Amino acid sequence: MSGKALVEPVEYEAAGAEVRAVYDDIMATRKTDWINNFWKVLAHDPVLLKRTWESVREVMAPGALDPLTKELIYIAVSATNGCEYCTYSHTASARAKGMSDAQFMELMAVVGMANETNRLANGLRPPVDPQFEPR
Amino acid sequence: MSGKALVEPVEYEAAGAEVRAVYDDIMATRKTDWINNFWKVLAHDPVLLKRTWESVREVMAPGALDPLTKELIYIAVSATNGCEYCTYSHTASARAKGMSDAQFMELMAVVGMANETNRLANGLRPPVDPQFEPR
Amino acid sequence: MSGKALVEPVEYEAAGAEVRAVYDDIMATRKTDWINNFWKVLAHDPVLLKRTWESVREVMAPGALDPLTKELIYIAVSATNGCEYCTYSHTASARAKGMSDAQFMELMAVVGMANETNRLANGLRPPVDPQFEPR
Amino acid sequence: MSGKALVEPVEYEAAGAEVRAVYDDIMATRKTDWINNFWKVLAHDPVLLKRTWESVREVMAPGALDPLTKELIYIAVSATNGCEYCTYSHTASARAKGMSDAQFMELMAVVGMANETNRLANGLRPPVDPQFEPR
Amino acid sequence: MSGKALVEPVEYEAAGAEVRAVYDDIMATRKTDWINNFWKVLAHDPVLLKRTWESVREVMAPGALDPLTKELIYIAVSATNGCEYCTYSHTASARAKGMSDAQFMELMAVVGMANETNRLANGLRPPVDPQFEPR
Amino acid sequence: MSGKALVEPVEYEAAGAEVRAVYDDIMATRKTDWINNFWKVLAHDPVLLKRTWESVREVMAPGALDPLTKELIYIAVSATNGCEYCTYSHTASARAKGMSDAQFMELMAVVGMANETNRLANGLRPPVDPQFEPR
Repeated sequence: MSGKALVEPVEYEAAGAEVRAVYDDIMATRKTDWINNFWKVLAHDPVLLKRTWESVREVMAPGALDPLTKELIYIAVSATNGCEYCTYSHTASARAKGMSDAQFMELMAVVGMANETNRLANGLRPPVDPQFEPR
Repeated sequence: MSGKALVEPVEYEAAGAEVRAVYDDIMATRKTDWINNFWKVLAHDPVLLKRTWESVREVMAPGALDPLTKELIYIAVSATNGCEYCTYSHTASARAKGMSDAQFMELMAVVGMANETNRLANGLRPPVDPQFEPR
Repeated sequence: MSGKALVEPVEYEAAGAEVRAVYDDIMATRKTDWINNFWKVLAHDPVLLKRTWESVREVMAPGALDPLTKELIYIAVSATNGCEYCTYSHTASARAKGMSDAQFMELMAVVGMANETNRLANGLRPPVDPQFEPR
Repeated sequence: MSGKALVEPVEYEAAGAEVRAVYDDIMATRKTDWINNFWKVLAHDPVLLKRTWESVREVMAPGALDPLTKELIYIAVSATNGCEYCTYSHTASARAKGMSDAQFMELMAVVGMANETNRLANGLRPPVDPQFEPR
Repeated sequence: MSGKALVEPVEYEAAGAEVRAVYDDIMATRKTDWINNFWKVLAHDPVLLKRTWESVREVMAPGALDPLTKELIYIAVSATNGCEYCTYSHTASARAKGMSDAQFMELMAVVGMANETNRLANGLRPPVDPQFEPR
Repeated sequence: MSGKALVEPVEYEAAGAEVRAVYDDIMATRKTDWINNFWKVLAHDPVLLKRTWESVREVMAPGALDPLTKELIYIAVSATNGCEYCTYSHTASARAKGMSDAQFMELMAVVGMANETNRLANGLRPPVDPQFEPR
């Protein structure tokens, strides 16, 4: 157990102009006054930071799916992959967007069940039914 | 590449009473007249078949989350795990529940992004921010 | 690193009748006088708690495979998925059921080797030999 | 879907002395007269072939765990990882070592359940109970 | 086994201006005259197509790591995740960039070994040595 | 969160001759005077310790790929699998072999992108293009 990031987080005060511009956009978009550690470690590569933030901002914006549904999907993937940081950060985001305890527990139930039946299918290898074929 | 299941699918005609009862409930619940291969291979163990079906039925029923959102979450997990059968079957289910092309593509975008940032976090190991701690 | 669960564990004293009934059954089945944290967090959704416990109890009961073999399989999956909580809890369970150090280390050796050859196969993609086809 | 290996399988007749020696040992150990495709693709790197075979032979030999239990563990890992080739080959091996249909289905039930509870734990993050700490 | 994509691939002739612009850039960057199926399915969401292509182009460009090393890393991840399409496409790309058979087999050897020791560590849980802590 | 290994690390002083011989070879090969915890937990099974060490030594030796490239691949797999111990230990090894911050961040960018496109392919299932088929 370490608890230390593999690169030193870049604080706002120590950041260059390129990184600060991304940090400013993160805080403006999220209406917060702080930057979480995920972005601070990405900041070691300003191009990676900028691309990742702009992609996340675009992907998580309202569209055919609403922002809370998108957070639920993010949590589902993070729990499946066992990403600790992502589980804490996206659960916090989902709660901030109104996720109730009941929704969170149902989400977990679906994630658990999907992981179970995925392995039953991967272990028993039923052929894909013709009825499921895309048109 | 095989394409054959690891146990012979159990057809309705060849099934015992216990299995038929589950098959009947699947068709009644889904308002369909056929059973997909996933359940036919589980039927080699009627207890496993019954428990898995009853769990899926309970988990996927409307609740704090609506059935389409639950299907989207199922697809997200299945794509993350690379389960081919599950991807085809749950995408078909989601389309039957009204998933549009635009929703499907946005779902994929979120799943892709979550898998990317999960690994950036797992590789760089930023500490969980105190602000993300559950109360 | 957080160390706090994403929902508050539900203690026996604070639990409702439905949850207490499950807790009582867990302690009776396991002949212990305490409930581990996994069940306490599931208890936020009494239906999820009850279904998961009853499924685990049914799956892990003696059958065509003995209980220790089942625990070894549980550890194999948990180590493959990198689930920390599960690794600690099921290793403790397996030891309580008599797993020796030698058995544990051999289990790890098989798990390691399977994870290695799984990726050699997934990277080199040999076709499934006709001799391995199920009859 | 391709179905072709990413390197051409090396047939016995075309193999050099180093590879043939491994192939001979595989057939002698397994009391068979053919080599499966997994080894034939590894044979492009005779050092990798030899090390992998010798490791597998050592790991899968009878020890504190019996050979059938080891095959069950191999299948559990392969189904969890979704390795198609490995699922077919190790299920065939387990059947050759006497695995019954009932044992196979119970194995799948445990694998499914472990994958489910792994994600419930990874998503809800209960702290490891002190009682589970190794002595 | 299906073999059909879950959305119909978008051919150049049927594509709108936004998609054609990306297709043109892919072909110009790669000096080829065809588009592979991965991009054709992404094209159902022109924004996703454009973002993903521009990210891949940026990430895979020469930098502190050379393009062949980047392809090797891509294959390592794809084999670890068991992504069939990605394994075929990135192995083809790596060969086009000069990957030899010997390099490919060594890559597989490292991927296999890493997957093995990852699970030995995840199953046995050695604490991170202070010497490995980042400064 | 535990932080304790599931078997007690075996210190040099307490080790038998077989284990000491491996420890000596590790230190001689790496030109260090200490043994990291990974090997100390494997030492509970001297055969597993010896085989794993000899395999790692062989696989990571200079060959068609140079040692730093091999460490990058090891990190890519470890981040994909979410193995905390492995991420810290192999990042430290890569830095000792000269990995720069810029190389590390580009590695992370490729790992992230590969994990993203792996899931886009696994979710949308484009068929493998004939042009990617191995000759």
